[in-house]
Amino acid sequence: MTDTILTSEKQKVVIGLERRFVIIGERINPTGRKLLAEEMARGDYSRVVADALAQVEGGAQMLDVNAGIPLADEPKILAECVKLVQDTVPVPLSIDSSIVEALEAGLAVYKGKPLVNSVTGEEERLERVLPLVAKYGAAVVAISNDETGISEDPDVRFAVAKKIVERAADHGITRENVVVDPLVMPVGAINDAGRKLMHLLRRLHDELKVNTTCGASNFSFGLPNRRGLGAAFLPMMIGAGLTSAIMNPLHPEDRQAILGADVVMGHDPNCMTWIKRFREPSAEAAVGEAGGRGRREGRRRERA
Amino acid sequence: MTDTILTSEKQKVVIGLERRFVIIGERINPTGRKLLAEEMARGDYSRVVADALAQVEGGAQMLDVNAGIPLADEPKILAECVKLVQDTVPVPLSIDSSIVEALEAGLAVYKGKPLVNSVTGEEERLERVLPLVAKYGAAVVAISNDETGISEDPDVRFAVAKKIVERAADHGITRENVVVDPLVMPVGAINDAGRKLMHLLRRLHDELKVNTTCGASNFSFGLPNRRGLGAAFLPMMIGAGLTSAIMNPLHPEDRQAILGADVVMGHDPNCMTWIKRFREPSAEAAVGEAGGRGRREGRRRERA
Repeated sequence: MTDTILTSEKQKVVIGLERRFVIIGERINPTGRKLLAEEMARGDYSRVVADALAQVEGGAQMLDVNAGIPLADEPKILAECVKLVQDTVPVPLSIDSSIVEALEAGLAVYKGKPLVNSVTGEEERLERVLPLVAKYGAAVVAISNDETGISEDPDVRFAVAKKIVERAADHGITRENVVVDPLVMPVGAINDAGRKLMHLLRRLHDELKVNTTCGASNFSFGLPNRRGLGAAFLPMMIGAGLTSAIMNPLHPEDRQAILGADVVMGHDPNCMTWIKRFREPSAEAAVGEAGGRGRREGRRRERA
Repeated sequence: MTDTILTSEKQKVVIGLERRFVIIGERINPTGRKLLAEEMARGDYSRVVADALAQVEGGAQMLDVNAGIPLADEPKILAECVKLVQDTVPVPLSIDSSIVEALEAGLAVYKGKPLVNSVTGEEERLERVLPLVAKYGAAVVAISNDETGISEDPDVRFAVAKKIVERAADHGITRENVVVDPLVMPVGAINDAGRKLMHLLRRLHDELKVNTTCGASNFSFGLPNRRGLGAAFLPMMIGAGLTSAIMNPLHPEDRQAILGADVVMGHDPNCMTWIKRFREPSAEAAVGEAGGRGRREGRRRERA
């Protein structure tokens, strides 16, 4: 059992191998959002507040906060956004930057135990980020690439993840506080990306026994009906061991797929969350469907 | 690599561990369908014909044909239906009965190599059904229960499946021609039914290396939004090794989930089936979505 505990002043979220899947909202991120980047650069955080509220309303149990704007004062902006988002919503945060000074600025103002996003297997990153994670008693996302880049071989990526977990331990950071990102590649470009990812997730789950997260939307990049594909992709990865994702919580198809996966994993006791969410006022559909199982059951009984 | 080859006069279907998932249409079955049962009992097969056409149109690569009507002449009706369905649609069939004489009557008129549905691990069934399967050169569905009933322990069910595969070999039936049904239990009654099923499917895939099929709709019995739950359940089972299902092919949600699972498994080369099916005339949705990955990619590049 591996539980990664994240907190804010008001809430605790547990990412765990035997827990409901955790959605980390990805929207507060100016990369690729020109308008948001311009607003954030001039200190207008109204869209950040709106995105925070909408994502928590949409079912995100945590929010990722990124302020990566070229030429802007990222440490200052990230710290301001972390404070503002914590004042706006009660959920724990993931503090997201490729600049160590920005991570530190965010950590300095954060109330509770956040997720630091992220460290890689690169020596320089390991030795700069891990001391910070240890100092603030945080948890950290460990991305399974290193100086040699992103390997297409899942076993190489497993080895990188293992190295990060071991190095974290040297800094006093336990396995529970390392959440591995196995790196989702687009299946439109790499046909066996899904298979390899499931293989890697199983090894991370069975052998390294770590929690995992990923940028789920990468998988369907360039393909039509991305929501439909995501609704098959997420349950399959959850079945292979994925315990959280950095994703857009505002799509009902993904949300339903995750609630369904929680049921299949046995992480929705007595299916109560599913039943509450989807209980139908009319009994018509239930009667219409019951025949399906009746038929199979009938056959089983005959045989028994 | 395990390929189960089924044929009609006109078509060949391959169920395989490295193949697209195979949908076996379940609708031609009077159990629980009172009107259909009455019609079939008096020799009116118009609904059988309509169900055959609709299911193949809906994407079924095979059809299950069952004529289990209490007090009716099942061998005669099953044989007539098998002939009629083969005259109506080109797909291979699964001949489905709990009465050995009915299986034999269906086999006697079948053109091609069908699936026989089914044998269990019960001694009496094994020794009556397997010689028939061998005589007609068919393949057979092996249900993983025996005289002791259906075990809740997936490892006991694995042992039953293994016994059936070994016994089939004694009759000259190779592993490729045994398709194991691991038995889907309703998650509303057994909270860890999904987890146990995935465990069993992985063992059947990795150790016994057999193809598998199941009555998928049993899983959601008694719960609301059964289609939504099925759309998470099916991809997760496919990820664990399920290679076919006896199911209703007329639900677009299930169909989309299976096409998505084929993509994730790497069984849709270059995602061509997915792209053909869901290609959008408008570029609007694609542009709206691209930001999601752009953001993550941007971060990756910065780190590299």
